[in-house]
Amino acid sequence: MGKQAIGVVGLAVMGRNLALNIESRGHAVSVYNRSRVKTDELIAEYPDRKLVPAFTLEEFVDSLEKPRRILLMVKAGEPTDATIASLKPLLEPGDILIDGGNTHFTDTIRRNQELAKAGLHFIGTGVSGGEEGALKGPSIMPGGQRDAYDLVAPILTEIAAKAPDGEPCVAYMGPDGAGHFVKMVHNGIEYGDMQLIAESYAVLKQVVGLSNDELGKVYTEWNQGELDSYLIEITSKIFGKKDDETGKDLVDVILDRAAQKGTGKWTSQNALDLGAPLPLITEAVFARVLSSLKTQRVAASKVLEGPQAKPLAGSKEAFVEAVRRALYFSKVISYAQGFAQLRAASEEYKWDLDYGTIAKIFRAGCIIRARFLQKITDAYAQDKALANLLLDPYFRDIAKNYQAALREVVVAAINAGVPVPAFSSAIAYFDAYRSERLPANLVQAQRDFFGAHTFERIDKPGSFHAQWN
Amino acid sequence: MGKQAIGVVGLAVMGRNLALNIESRGHAVSVYNRSRVKTDELIAEYPDRKLVPAFTLEEFVDSLEKPRRILLMVKAGEPTDATIASLKPLLEPGDILIDGGNTHFTDTIRRNQELAKAGLHFIGTGVSGGEEGALKGPSIMPGGQRDAYDLVAPILTEIAAKAPDGEPCVAYMGPDGAGHFVKMVHNGIEYGDMQLIAESYAVLKQVVGLSNDELGKVYTEWNQGELDSYLIEITSKIFGKKDDETGKDLVDVILDRAAQKGTGKWTSQNALDLGAPLPLITEAVFARVLSSLKTQRVAASKVLEGPQAKPLAGSKEAFVEAVRRALYFSKVISYAQGFAQLRAASEEYKWDLDYGTIAKIFRAGCIIRARFLQKITDAYAQDKALANLLLDPYFRDIAKNYQAALREVVVAAINAGVPVPAFSSAIAYFDAYRSERLPANLVQAQRDFFGAHTFERIDKPGSFHAQWN
Repeated sequence: MGKQAIGVVGLAVMGRNLALNIESRGHAVSVYNRSRVKTDELIAEYPDRKLVPAFTLEEFVDSLEKPRRILLMVKAGEPTDATIASLKPLLEPGDILIDGGNTHFTDTIRRNQELAKAGLHFIGTGVSGGEEGALKGPSIMPGGQRDAYDLVAPILTEIAAKAPDGEPCVAYMGPDGAGHFVKMVHNGIEYGDMQLIAESYAVLKQVVGLSNDELGKVYTEWNQGELDSYLIEITSKIFGKKDDETGKDLVDVILDRAAQKGTGKWTSQNALDLGAPLPLITEAVFARVLSSLKTQRVAASKVLEGPQAKPLAGSKEAFVEAVRRALYFSKVISYAQGFAQLRAASEEYKWDLDYGTIAKIFRAGCIIRARFLQKITDAYAQDKALANLLLDPYFRDIAKNYQAALREVVVAAINAGVPVPAFSSAIAYFDAYRSERLPANLVQAQRDFFGAHTFERIDKPGSFHAQWN
Repeated sequence: MGKQAIGVVGLAVMGRNLALNIESRGHAVSVYNRSRVKTDELIAEYPDRKLVPAFTLEEFVDSLEKPRRILLMVKAGEPTDATIASLKPLLEPGDILIDGGNTHFTDTIRRNQELAKAGLHFIGTGVSGGEEGALKGPSIMPGGQRDAYDLVAPILTEIAAKAPDGEPCVAYMGPDGAGHFVKMVHNGIEYGDMQLIAESYAVLKQVVGLSNDELGKVYTEWNQGELDSYLIEITSKIFGKKDDETGKDLVDVILDRAAQKGTGKWTSQNALDLGAPLPLITEAVFARVLSSLKTQRVAASKVLEGPQAKPLAGSKEAFVEAVRRALYFSKVISYAQGFAQLRAASEEYKWDLDYGTIAKIFRAGCIIRARFLQKITDAYAQDKALANLLLDPYFRDIAKNYQAALREVVVAAINAGVPVPAFSSAIAYFDAYRSERLPANLVQAQRDFFGAHTFERIDKPGSFHAQWN
């Protein structure tokens, strides 16, 4: 019996869909799951596919060509460590483990280093696109040993999503944790995108007074232009969906408590560690948390009054266009922050990330896929060392032409009492980033006053301390 | 020779000042430092004080009454662990170690548990007030075993700052890491306060056009009212200080790159872990980080234009009063977030924190000391289980009367291109917290659409999934 070029450990939905995706490209795939029932179910459901079940890890490892390529799709954390520990004695130098789980990049760095001591290769890879992406073509962000990546690249390239220009959405990200890091920032950016869309919805509904029908039309129209993206597309569809039970618009029946799985939080915590300003995404994370305090909010709504509602001054159409511009410019600012975080990480962890390529592989398969990502790729193609996306000519033009709209929308929302934490944070970041002089001199004066922390001067180098009293 | 009731390990400035403070209350104090030169210097400088030098840890431990009370004032992290490891074999059950360093509360929890196995007590205590506070009276926030606290309480009470009503600024915070946690949140709040003051300065300077002289007068006046606080007081003095070298106002000579020591970052990272919304303080942390990117900002200021400056519409005096109100209300919102984080932590770590007492011991000695802290104590005296400070009648009134001013100031700043990330975040939090309905229903619809993450409904309990396509 022949051996398989690759095997998958862990047959929950993501693992089984990736196995089916690989098989659909013409590869027989060894499959293993800790409890055999999932393996049996998979084989029973797809009897005609070239899935080769194994019921012990020994059997599974023996069924693979050398060097072995093993895709781990098990729960992140302890279960991943346990699976690696069980596999390790069965493997030989040169074998390649690929962790496709939702792993924190620091765990990936640790595992990569530990396994390298035994001559084993370890690739940590982001896989984005959910269940459907896994089956039909996800965006794939692998990091680890370069030569190990080259040995799995052909298969990953086959199963990856294809961008509109036909390019596969997979590329080598960098050493050890680079792949899982890029996936983490992807998810943080996704939090930002979703919060920005939610705020545009709140403003259009509460300030402009649009109905769900009108909202659906607005997002459908926006999806034809600069904002063309998967999230805008599904948003337009959401407003057209009826609740089967009540016949009402489903969006109005859904409770306004946003849940999360924690990767947005990781992105913010890492940005704080790196000293990379990521306020917009962090506001988005906190906005979800605050939404979950529904009971408190309901109580507060009864005792904390806001401003009197006033009708919109000026044309409805013009304001809707202002919201579109505000959304697009805020999105640009959010990505500028996210890509600046990637840059800070690349320096800190010595990854030599290629930002243009990262934007490229986001163009299909993943949740944040969008037409505008090409603009990011273009920006880095023009200047590989670009410090911040806002400095690129295309994005500078967006800033120049759309900032008035963002200011207008934030002002209207604040005056109407509609919370727009991410929009507000976007304009504050923009104005701070373009400030030659910030009031941080006062902060330094205070720190030197109360704690003798010293300050720098504008006119000469060095650290200074004043006698303030 | 008699034995001492307490000893201090670590004679850098905080340790030596605390030793001198204790001695000044009539206690002989054993002192030890790893390198003896600091000990010799201290004794040489204060030959008439009852400081008893020890040059080995054995000698030091032998010089103390039992149960021994040992205040550790060494560097946080590794050095603290190393000092504890050296001391441990010399100690006996019932002895008490007190860590007064700038320790992360999770380290304190770990050390408390480890030492408890050997019958040793471990108190982690926040000490706020800098060098001068340590010498004359800091605010002290101890956590650990209650009975151990009772044995050190008399000395801590003597050396603590005294509030205007004479009450000492020290109280038992709770078990294990509670003391260091409260100190961490204190520091986060300090970041928020400083950023808010910096934003008020930016608005008064850039929107109103006040000179440094006028700014000094404004802050002096504000310090007479609701904003009466140490930070406003030193701010008023900063604007009057001349640079010895150039004769210019010193504040204008100081470089606008704010530094930090990381405790604000810890507060934000913990809030993200707890799921406690802390956007304002986090914006303050990111504002410092962004200020440090001075080179990028200078470059950006040349290519990213803002709005045209327009003269202030309306009376200068009225707008300055609006800024005062905006600052006070934003401060209230920041403390509401910080105290909500304390509440979340108290539940998560089972500390049973007393929020009114915490506000009380902040009233003197520490950097955030302020008249308004009494209002927080009063609020919790009226309702120990208050979910959020904004729901208390006094703070509700502030919200009612001052929100228009906060909106006005944020709108003016945004229209003028002056970044006010913390002010903006304050009003966004306020409007979100008082929203019965947030647009998070759309976020939940999107998550269910692309990831089958399910949603809740407004009309019945349970988790639901829709066929969106």
